[in-house]
Amino acid sequence: MMVNTLFLPELREMLATGAEEELREFCTALHPARTAEFMEGLTREEQWKVLQYAEPPLRAEIFSYFPHDRQIEMLLHENEKQVAELITHIPADDAVDLLSELPERRVEQLLALVPAPDRRDIRRLQTFPEGTAGSIMTTEAACLDERLTVRQALEKLSRQAERLETIYYIYVVDDTNHLRGVLSTRMLVSSIGKPERTIAELMDTDIVTVDAYDDQEKVAQIVAKYDLLAIPVVDEQRHMLGIITHDDVMDVVREEATEDVQRIAAVDPLEDSYIRTSILTLARKRGMWLGILFFAGLITAFALRGYESEFESYAWLVWFIPLIIGSGGNSGAQTSTLIIAAMAAGEVDSKQWWRIIVREIATGGLLGLFLASLALTPALLLAPSAWAATVVPLTILFVVLCGTFSGSILPLLFRRLGWDPALMSNPFVAGIMDITGIVVYVTIARAMLG
Amino acid sequence: MMVNTLFLPELREMLATGAEEELREFCTALHPARTAEFMEGLTREEQWKVLQYAEPPLRAEIFSYFPHDRQIEMLLHENEKQVAELITHIPADDAVDLLSELPERRVEQLLALVPAPDRRDIRRLQTFPEGTAGSIMTTEAACLDERLTVRQALEKLSRQAERLETIYYIYVVDDTNHLRGVLSTRMLVSSIGKPERTIAELMDTDIVTVDAYDDQEKVAQIVAKYDLLAIPVVDEQRHMLGIITHDDVMDVVREEATEDVQRIAAVDPLEDSYIRTSILTLARKRGMWLGILFFAGLITAFALRGYESEFESYAWLVWFIPLIIGSGGNSGAQTSTLIIAAMAAGEVDSKQWWRIIVREIATGGLLGLFLASLALTPALLLAPSAWAATVVPLTILFVVLCGTFSGSILPLLFRRLGWDPALMSNPFVAGIMDITGIVVYVTIARAMLG
Repeated sequence: MMVNTLFLPELREMLATGAEEELREFCTALHPARTAEFMEGLTREEQWKVLQYAEPPLRAEIFSYFPHDRQIEMLLHENEKQVAELITHIPADDAVDLLSELPERRVEQLLALVPAPDRRDIRRLQTFPEGTAGSIMTTEAACLDERLTVRQALEKLSRQAERLETIYYIYVVDDTNHLRGVLSTRMLVSSIGKPERTIAELMDTDIVTVDAYDDQEKVAQIVAKYDLLAIPVVDEQRHMLGIITHDDVMDVVREEATEDVQRIAAVDPLEDSYIRTSILTLARKRGMWLGILFFAGLITAFALRGYESEFESYAWLVWFIPLIIGSGGNSGAQTSTLIIAAMAAGEVDSKQWWRIIVREIATGGLLGLFLASLALTPALLLAPSAWAATVVPLTILFVVLCGTFSGSILPLLFRRLGWDPALMSNPFVAGIMDITGIVVYVTIARAMLG
Repeated sequence: MMVNTLFLPELREMLATGAEEELREFCTALHPARTAEFMEGLTREEQWKVLQYAEPPLRAEIFSYFPHDRQIEMLLHENEKQVAELITHIPADDAVDLLSELPERRVEQLLALVPAPDRRDIRRLQTFPEGTAGSIMTTEAACLDERLTVRQALEKLSRQAERLETIYYIYVVDDTNHLRGVLSTRMLVSSIGKPERTIAELMDTDIVTVDAYDDQEKVAQIVAKYDLLAIPVVDEQRHMLGIITHDDVMDVVREEATEDVQRIAAVDPLEDSYIRTSILTLARKRGMWLGILFFAGLITAFALRGYESEFESYAWLVWFIPLIIGSGGNSGAQTSTLIIAAMAAGEVDSKQWWRIIVREIATGGLLGLFLASLALTPALLLAPSAWAATVVPLTILFVVLCGTFSGSILPLLFRRLGWDPALMSNPFVAGIMDITGIVVYVTIARAMLG
């Protein structure tokens, strides 16, 4: 990442001379993301000093755009009281994520200085397991009573607005915090002309909600389906617990996409970013699958030994082994990846298995014929006779067909069994095609060459 | 997908008896997405009839939740005047997408019936190439004059609110439509207490914008970076052209993730969903890359022929070929996929190449030692002597190291050359490792066995 050095000398000058007015101006003039960018070249201590010139809510917002490692360092090493004040202004879900990376002692120190209501929010969020709706929700939602009029609601909302992460939906709750309805700010604003109508008249009672223990991937799918800006999280009794906002959903979508890609390449999904994962963890998450694939590979070694006599009589057959098993593996990996991606996007489901398999066999036939035609000339060049040479294109045609067939049937089967179809990784398909390819090759060679 | 049949008999009954009141109630009672779901089992004609009982804006919203194919059928076959009315209520960007799939003649017929301002919007959006910001923007944004007071702005916004896709940012433009500032509805609502302040005093002039010709992937990155709900699209003179909303950005993120996955499996990205892509197109988009990989595979055939004498003297070496090249290919594919995904997520860039390569060589060393230790026993079983057997684990160690090294250096190189690193597909890495693996194997065997 490029470090933005444009403002650095001026910022340092301002800090040195204690130019309060100018530092305040710097904090408020730009979008908080840009403010954070301009502070990139400063040391942690300097950044922290500059931050203190921003009002606490803005301070928390600028802080949210710092790199994750820097955020952790600040929470660890800066003044306890200032850090605690910052934490009260960070959305509770983000605060929980950050605190989870600090040592237990520091967390207790800091939380002791956080006002009780915020501390309660943080404690409650900490109880939801990672990957659930509860763990990514924020407890700060705009909640109003249904008996309010449009005028009263607007006034109340106007007092809450600055403190809340999002005010684009207003949730209507009764006295015991049961969710009764939802109202968009758009609806409220467009009712300004009828200030005496009540929220109860305007609100929508058909509310899309998620349970606090629902999987975050399910949450993302629902939000995408209904094109929501935020979704309320409730417990079993429909008590309003919090909301999940569109930006957290976007993070989930990105995270799940990355995990799928990693699974497809036979890497156990990393919990952290690639660059922050230790080499030992990387080796473990990869070695696990490489080990499994290795034993699949061993079968080929024993199969080839079993076919020793065939390869001794026709030594030239050996030359085409990598080409043949590669063609099968590649076409199979294409198929399984296409199907895994289509299932993840919700475009196909396992009930369409028949249609998928027919499509893949047809595609495999076309691809097999194409690769077989490419293989004919080199086979004629390397094989002892034209008749013998045809073994190679014929094998490639069959192996590509087997590749697309198993590449399509296995993710479908995995889904049916309730497993993640992305476990049907490219290397796994390739491993299956290694064995299949060799068996098909020798069978055809035997039949044709005797 | 499950067809929801709960309401079907009632709906058909209502249509048969012309129960206007009840059909209106059905259209308004639920979230439009659910209304569309409950209509799934109806025929196209029945669905269209039910839709006519909803007010046009709601009608367009319910329509937006129908499956894509059904939408196209309706635009093709239903009454022209009704279809044209529907089109005026669909956001212009979605209308352009739908119209692009109709025959030219039908488009002209329909657009002739659409009011001139909406038609102009559609015509203008049609000029932006697919994949650009312009092609996914909507022209319906809340635009206000900076001279308005808070009170006036709220009133004006309340009249616009129902018609607009989103009102969560208010864009401030001058008389010639130059973008001057932006104001969140949250800010406006929280200023209700000071109704005489002007928009000019409240608005933010540091606006994050995108150019209409910017790539949609860039738009998605900016929106994610600044956590925006919508981003304004401007031309070179900073004229306000439209906005891109968070749900369109979510679609872009999903689309780009799917494309990356397809590229990683050596499939040229599909323009349409997997299930809607014709078999011929599928075969073409896959055959292209399979053909290229095939020629890489051919090199292995000629290499193996070149090593004929080695494999004749030590026939057992042949048995381990698939295992060895598979281990190299798998570990290389893991590395390249991890790096491609990390680059796509913006976690690493090619300036960190040195750190990445060092990490991968270290990881490769660990993985290589692990697989080599697994290979020792089978090699001892199959090789004629203990000394000869050590060729196999030694080769695996080196091949895995080569795999992680080339898996890391190639995506970095691709990025440096300005290519898409996802072109460094798993099959491509596997192809490179096929050749490398064989060369390393024979070199080590020669050195050790003479």
